[in-house]
Amino acid sequence: MKLEENEGFLTYQQTNATQFDNRSCGRSEGMRSRSSIIISQSANRSIFSPRISSAAEIHGFMLGESEEEEYEDMYPLLFTQLNELVTMQEDVEWRETARWIKFEEKTEDGANRWSKPHVTTLTLHSLFELRTSIEKGTILLDTESSTFKDIVENVMNLKIARNSINQEEKKKISYILNQKHVHQTQKSWIRTVADNLSSCNGNKTQKGATVEFSEKPLKEQLKNKFRKKIPTGTEAANILVGEVDFLEKPFASFIRLKEAVVLGSLNEVALPSRFIFILLGPRKKSKTYHEIGRAIATLLTDELFRKIAYSALTKEALIAGIDDFLDELTVLPPGKSDPTVRIQPPKFLPSPQKRKSNLLRESKSYCNGNSQSPHGHPHVSEELKKTGKFFGGLVKDLRRKAPWYWSDFYDALNIQCLSTIIFIYLATATNAITFGGMLGDATDNMQGVIENFLGTAITGALFCLFSGQPLTILSSTGPVLVFERLLYNFSKDYQLEYLEFRLWIGLWVAFYCLILVATEASFLVQYFTRFTEESFCALISFIFIYDAIKKMMNLADQFPINWQYRLNNVTQNSCACILPDGGNDSSIDRMEYRIINSSAHTNSDFLDWAQFTQSLCKDFKGHLEGNNCNYVPDIYLMSILLFFGTFFCVSSLKSFQNSRFLSSSIRKLTADFSVILTILIFCAIDFICGLETPKLTVPNEFKPTNPNRSWVVFPFGANPWWVCLLSGIPAILITILVFMDQQITAVILNRKEYKLKKGAGLHLDFFCIAILIILTSFMGLPWYVSATVISLAHMNSLKMETTQTAPGEQPTFLGIREQRVTGLAVFILTGTSVFLSPVLKYIPMPVLYGIFLQMGVAALGSIQFMDRLQLLFIPSKHQPDNIYLRHVPLQKVHLFTLIQVLCLAILWILKSTVAAIIFPLMLLALAGIRKAMEWIFSQYELSWLDDILPQNNRKEAESKMEDIDSSDSETSELKYQGKNPEINISVNL
Amino acid sequence: MKLEENEGFLTYQQTNATQFDNRSCGRSEGMRSRSSIIISQSANRSIFSPRISSAAEIHGFMLGESEEEEYEDMYPLLFTQLNELVTMQEDVEWRETARWIKFEEKTEDGANRWSKPHVTTLTLHSLFELRTSIEKGTILLDTESSTFKDIVENVMNLKIARNSINQEEKKKISYILNQKHVHQTQKSWIRTVADNLSSCNGNKTQKGATVEFSEKPLKEQLKNKFRKKIPTGTEAANILVGEVDFLEKPFASFIRLKEAVVLGSLNEVALPSRFIFILLGPRKKSKTYHEIGRAIATLLTDELFRKIAYSALTKEALIAGIDDFLDELTVLPPGKSDPTVRIQPPKFLPSPQKRKSNLLRESKSYCNGNSQSPHGHPHVSEELKKTGKFFGGLVKDLRRKAPWYWSDFYDALNIQCLSTIIFIYLATATNAITFGGMLGDATDNMQGVIENFLGTAITGALFCLFSGQPLTILSSTGPVLVFERLLYNFSKDYQLEYLEFRLWIGLWVAFYCLILVATEASFLVQYFTRFTEESFCALISFIFIYDAIKKMMNLADQFPINWQYRLNNVTQNSCACILPDGGNDSSIDRMEYRIINSSAHTNSDFLDWAQFTQSLCKDFKGHLEGNNCNYVPDIYLMSILLFFGTFFCVSSLKSFQNSRFLSSSIRKLTADFSVILTILIFCAIDFICGLETPKLTVPNEFKPTNPNRSWVVFPFGANPWWVCLLSGIPAILITILVFMDQQITAVILNRKEYKLKKGAGLHLDFFCIAILIILTSFMGLPWYVSATVISLAHMNSLKMETTQTAPGEQPTFLGIREQRVTGLAVFILTGTSVFLSPVLKYIPMPVLYGIFLQMGVAALGSIQFMDRLQLLFIPSKHQPDNIYLRHVPLQKVHLFTLIQVLCLAILWILKSTVAAIIFPLMLLALAGIRKAMEWIFSQYELSWLDDILPQNNRKEAESKMEDIDSSDSETSELKYQGKNPEINISVNL
Repeated sequence: MKLEENEGFLTYQQTNATQFDNRSCGRSEGMRSRSSIIISQSANRSIFSPRISSAAEIHGFMLGESEEEEYEDMYPLLFTQLNELVTMQEDVEWRETARWIKFEEKTEDGANRWSKPHVTTLTLHSLFELRTSIEKGTILLDTESSTFKDIVENVMNLKIARNSINQEEKKKISYILNQKHVHQTQKSWIRTVADNLSSCNGNKTQKGATVEFSEKPLKEQLKNKFRKKIPTGTEAANILVGEVDFLEKPFASFIRLKEAVVLGSLNEVALPSRFIFILLGPRKKSKTYHEIGRAIATLLTDELFRKIAYSALTKEALIAGIDDFLDELTVLPPGKSDPTVRIQPPKFLPSPQKRKSNLLRESKSYCNGNSQSPHGHPHVSEELKKTGKFFGGLVKDLRRKAPWYWSDFYDALNIQCLSTIIFIYLATATNAITFGGMLGDATDNMQGVIENFLGTAITGALFCLFSGQPLTILSSTGPVLVFERLLYNFSKDYQLEYLEFRLWIGLWVAFYCLILVATEASFLVQYFTRFTEESFCALISFIFIYDAIKKMMNLADQFPINWQYRLNNVTQNSCACILPDGGNDSSIDRMEYRIINSSAHTNSDFLDWAQFTQSLCKDFKGHLEGNNCNYVPDIYLMSILLFFGTFFCVSSLKSFQNSRFLSSSIRKLTADFSVILTILIFCAIDFICGLETPKLTVPNEFKPTNPNRSWVVFPFGANPWWVCLLSGIPAILITILVFMDQQITAVILNRKEYKLKKGAGLHLDFFCIAILIILTSFMGLPWYVSATVISLAHMNSLKMETTQTAPGEQPTFLGIREQRVTGLAVFILTGTSVFLSPVLKYIPMPVLYGIFLQMGVAALGSIQFMDRLQLLFIPSKHQPDNIYLRHVPLQKVHLFTLIQVLCLAILWILKSTVAAIIFPLMLLALAGIRKAMEWIFSQYELSWLDDILPQNNRKEAESKMEDIDSSDSETSELKYQGKNPEINISVNL
Repeated sequence: MKLEENEGFLTYQQTNATQFDNRSCGRSEGMRSRSSIIISQSANRSIFSPRISSAAEIHGFMLGESEEEEYEDMYPLLFTQLNELVTMQEDVEWRETARWIKFEEKTEDGANRWSKPHVTTLTLHSLFELRTSIEKGTILLDTESSTFKDIVENVMNLKIARNSINQEEKKKISYILNQKHVHQTQKSWIRTVADNLSSCNGNKTQKGATVEFSEKPLKEQLKNKFRKKIPTGTEAANILVGEVDFLEKPFASFIRLKEAVVLGSLNEVALPSRFIFILLGPRKKSKTYHEIGRAIATLLTDELFRKIAYSALTKEALIAGIDDFLDELTVLPPGKSDPTVRIQPPKFLPSPQKRKSNLLRESKSYCNGNSQSPHGHPHVSEELKKTGKFFGGLVKDLRRKAPWYWSDFYDALNIQCLSTIIFIYLATATNAITFGGMLGDATDNMQGVIENFLGTAITGALFCLFSGQPLTILSSTGPVLVFERLLYNFSKDYQLEYLEFRLWIGLWVAFYCLILVATEASFLVQYFTRFTEESFCALISFIFIYDAIKKMMNLADQFPINWQYRLNNVTQNSCACILPDGGNDSSIDRMEYRIINSSAHTNSDFLDWAQFTQSLCKDFKGHLEGNNCNYVPDIYLMSILLFFGTFFCVSSLKSFQNSRFLSSSIRKLTADFSVILTILIFCAIDFICGLETPKLTVPNEFKPTNPNRSWVVFPFGANPWWVCLLSGIPAILITILVFMDQQITAVILNRKEYKLKKGAGLHLDFFCIAILIILTSFMGLPWYVSATVISLAHMNSLKMETTQTAPGEQPTFLGIREQRVTGLAVFILTGTSVFLSPVLKYIPMPVLYGIFLQMGVAALGSIQFMDRLQLLFIPSKHQPDNIYLRHVPLQKVHLFTLIQVLCLAILWILKSTVAAIIFPLMLLALAGIRKAMEWIFSQYELSWLDDILPQNNRKEAESKMEDIDSSDSETSELKYQGKNPEINISVNL
């Protein structure tokens, strides 16, 4: 129990005795009691002494013992609670004034609430005082008492034995320590108001419940909801500080229990206590005591010191631990920061293992060539290594994924999957509607909404069943849409049968794709760096935005407005039906009209040519004449309102997630369902207004949108035989396109940051895509590749995180719930949606355009390219403190951006002119341009602005070996940036 | 020059000798060289030793000497520059790697630029190392050398004298120190790109200019633009650190020059150097040297240490200074903060004088009644003290303002005033247009835009000439508008002559106002607390928003849309003119028509009844018949587009100011001119579209808007004689309204935070208002009171700030350019705008409504009431860390908000029903409710949520005296919050 009893310690102490002596410079107690403090530093870092300090050695010894995994078991997390002695008129009581798990929460003065969790800032002074307190106070390690009273008794006896206190003082201290403990707990709204109303006007307001100290945990302790926030296995540390009248010098004591026990009503929550720190002292110093209490709490919250606190065998070991802590401190100069601002907990915390190396982070590395080792995260994973065998990659993928296959089904047994299914289904359906509409537009309804629904359902479900990465969601994507339009126009221009022509192209594409699979071409994705990804993404986004706006402009031609309309001339507006023979008196017409009329609407005999509706007039081959015929009132302006309304509504619902209102789950739900919600709202507005705005064209029954086609396409018949062979040429381009589109997404989805356990299957994925292209070509359905945004949303909603997080701590990402069920369910639901057409026809087109605009804008917002583009317009002093701006000259950043802009401009021009057919080739060229940039930019600069190309990996590794120090400092900076799974690239929805 | 020569010091040293001995515990050099450090704390704060430490004494002595004003003169600000030794292949050179004025800017690795200014964070270790360096190094105080070579020579000689170095080392050190110095300077864009293109691919890129060390300042030093940022009188401190091969132990030296001299090309800017710190050491420690360099730089940046550095006479004094600095440090625990995040400079810096007391800021004050001393900023200024004499306040105001009168004109000689005039003129004109429109609406054009322009110009100009606070801008305000409408409706209902009735009311109002002036009633404004101000402001804002939306809704009735319009039925739309006698064949009509026709537009003889325009039809007393007559296409939807477009455009232009784009002056300009810009943009859009949207009604010539009135109102004639007396009753209410409206604004404008030098004149202001009401009543113009928002904008654009601020430092607010010229010029310009009517009639009403909506929303956004309202919907863990939430229980905050909501609801109901006439009384009641709240809330709580009522000031002062400690800690929190002049209340535009 006491120090002297521990045999092992004694030997230990002996071996280190000389070193201890060196550390403490004054040997007499009298020396130390002066206002000086002697701190031992880990002197291997000191420039004035070449020796290794003892403190560092002790710790190396003590910390080295434990294995990484056992860490939390051996040294449980601590819930630390600061109790202060408060004098209430006659009475005294202990009141909880702050608590720690990872960050500090204090009770607000008079506000009856916990503050925001914040990083504890201490005064250096308080740490020194704490050190002295420990040094001069009583240390009681591994005591076996199980009640608070016993513990206090033990401490007292030890003190008396050392003549620190007398019997009189012992009695008084015991009395004080056994006073009631008041904790800050949440009360109901009404009760608090009632309390306040009864006892107010500046008088004593009672905080928390006031009960006598009891040896058993109280009901409110056991019921405390805060318990849920505390990780299981956590133990408690209690800090008791206060000022009393009867003491003349401070009474300090640090106690560790052998076994953690629940010490009655001492804690706010009924946790077993392990540590107790008591500091009582004379009056007039209560602020200092408070600060010392905060200091010991901060120490116990620290990962490294916690180990020492749990394992220390002597007072000296504890003090050495404090010295080590002091050595690691970051210091803020006085007068340069606002003391009222509480420091927010950071997003990324350095791990305790790496902390030591961080002390060196401010190293300087000048651009001397080799000291500038490039870093960056090259994404060469195990899956992408070439086997060199025919279909070797595919076989390896199958072998890797097969063992997981059944777990892919039972892993889905979680409620989280259900909400994922609903959310992703809605996203997929919306996507299918919007893309279906676009496709129908591009191909004169040869492929419309129904086809897109059917195709999405079939291919998606099959892909989820057999692919390498079942979290992928298939969808028709922007580039494929662009190409489909080109293809249709081409076949129209040259009078080819579109679907048959397309079937042959599809077959060729599938053939090429299979060759790519066989030759393991997927390893080429390593050449797709951020530059390629982002350029591609930006292009797709611009196409979205451009298309949405262009379609809105086209509506102006469809529904022209009479801008010259004058209210005064209302009587002069006319539009009448003029029949071709002018024939008012042609009896045949009259007869005919009567027949139509009677069947169509009324049975009246009355005939008025002016009352002919537009369609009737057309039936009679008449034409409309009058100054009002060409104008359509209100509809276009209404469309504009719907368009912008949708855009702003989706945007604000999505940004609602980042607001502070309501609970975060409601906000997340709103953001997740924002698109569906907006569509519903604006369909309702449109329906209520009742104007004839253009609506989504959907067939009334389950049949091809265009009546001229069937569900199966025959390979021969309509086109000349040589078309089959000719199709091979455009197929090359489409193959490139499909390859780029599929693989960029696959790379993004299989990033290391997502901590996927079941591995990727890039070759298998691409094999599935090839097979599915054959299928969809035969059925005349669109081609599908992975859709980045929806797939990322899918993964995001299956994210697993630690549920118990201390206040202020960010939840830790554990991985993704990898399984095939959610995807499968989504696509089965999508399949049944084919029968939704009676509902879908109420959706106005402007609403869909608005959603497309928002999708384009949102995708643009998430890429670094746009940030860099904005930098061009921001004067350097206002620029954000981006990490790449710290390492790359601004001019170089601008140059990089301008090159990217140029590439995009060229791609855009290509896309818009007749050269559009070579567009996929140009996408490939992006990778080449990226390679060429190595002539202008150094590897170091590119590593900050972009990723590193694979052939440089070896060089990089070498240079890293050469100069560990500097690369260390840089990766330590990177460590906290963007390594968490964040959706930072969102492409081709 | 050296220590021993200073006689005064020797005595000083003697008296303190014993104390120094006590502080350093190990007396032998051998002891100290171990890895231990002994730090003296100011032990009056230590709980273990009752003695006062010597360090504190020394400083008390040294710092006490200097007077506050001489501070900057005696101890000039330091520009500190850290130079590090860099090895370039064969060569070595000194490179500037960081600089300090108040905050640290470092050169980014490889980025060729300065980082954002940030707070320096140090390791505690580096401070200890620095302390040892100073302790063991050579200290050379007040050396008289004037060249860098001489100084180096002196140091060397001293070192050799102490046998620290030998001749060999001396030579090498001299060589190293005299290497060239490279500074980080801005280069032009093109040159850098060119540089990079020529010498890249990871090879050495040249930074800055590389010139040999010269004894004369270089051209680039003298030209350096950074010079402008440095306050005049600043001296330089140079820190030179580096690692060399030949040294075996560190070479440290701290040098202070007797007179600051420009040391050749040592500095980035040609400033005289005062301090030099040199640290050279063996290899492998360059990071430590860098950190030590940063530590000494941080010390020299510190206000308190700077004094010591300038005045210290011994090494011990310097070390004591470091110890004091250490004692004040704030400390961040390791592993709890993200080391890559640079700490932003805070908005408010604690002044060095108050820093000591801040160490105690974490004091706890429990709600024991008297420890909760209320704070808050009561606004009882000298101007508001009652004299007790008849018109005493007015006389005092005149006496106070008279001496400043001429300076009010010549103080305006600044270019800033010109831009103010343009900006405020545009704001005033916009305001006059919008309010004119609303007034015209409310009074059937008895008071329209022209009247409002004329009235604004006359009263504004007179007020600026004679008022007590010439920065005030007069305008008609919301409440007056509400009352004007009531008045007009009343006189219409009871068949009274509106203008004459109004004249009498005006006379009565002026009479009452003069009584209020005579009785010094303005002292009552002390009862208007934040609660009253904000409730009033919220009410006005809601009225604005409600009015704008209601007016838009009304447009729907004016321009109805045919929601049932079907494209197919275009031929069935008709509208024809039907004459009353059905008369196609009435010759009289035919004749008449021909006459009108020939005179009006064409001379044709052809007659077609269907071609009758709406107005012609009306002339013939016909009526329109047809299913299309009641509908107006497009105009309403166009109005909605204009309305929302204007709203979003103004909002985004205003928020553009807070973006990062372009230079801050351009952004400010855009925000200042946002309203005018938006009006211009949307007028242009409307004009281009050409639709007949409703436009602002302005007369074509300079005459009263309503032809039934003239410019002068005669007091007798139209109404019965008793109306003159009866008018006295409503006049009471209007007097209250005018008083409230005028005085709330006056209080806001004369806040202490604005540092007004010429004093306020509340009584004089109100006197002017009364006189002007007489004038405007006789001319039938609107009544004017101070407009808060425009007046605040006026003051804001006349703000004077320090121009030289260190990077990262916030400019210091110096005061307002108080003069009468800007206001006068604005109103003269407004007067000439009366002739603008041909332009004004192009402004569509929906645009003006949109601006009103934005004004209402913006005013709401700036008040604390809205923040508290939002809190109701934010779960407590997401709530912002507002200062009042730290001190007042959340339930109490909610209760306060709900009471305020209730008050507003009652006011709103009153305003909307027949009881509207007692509305001003209810405004007064607000102050009563605030008083009643003292029954529910404690003074302490109210002091955080609101201001303190005047009768409590005495009590407050007493309780403050009782408990200085706790109020200290609270005011120290308040000190940094909201004391800068910010427009946080914007009312009644």
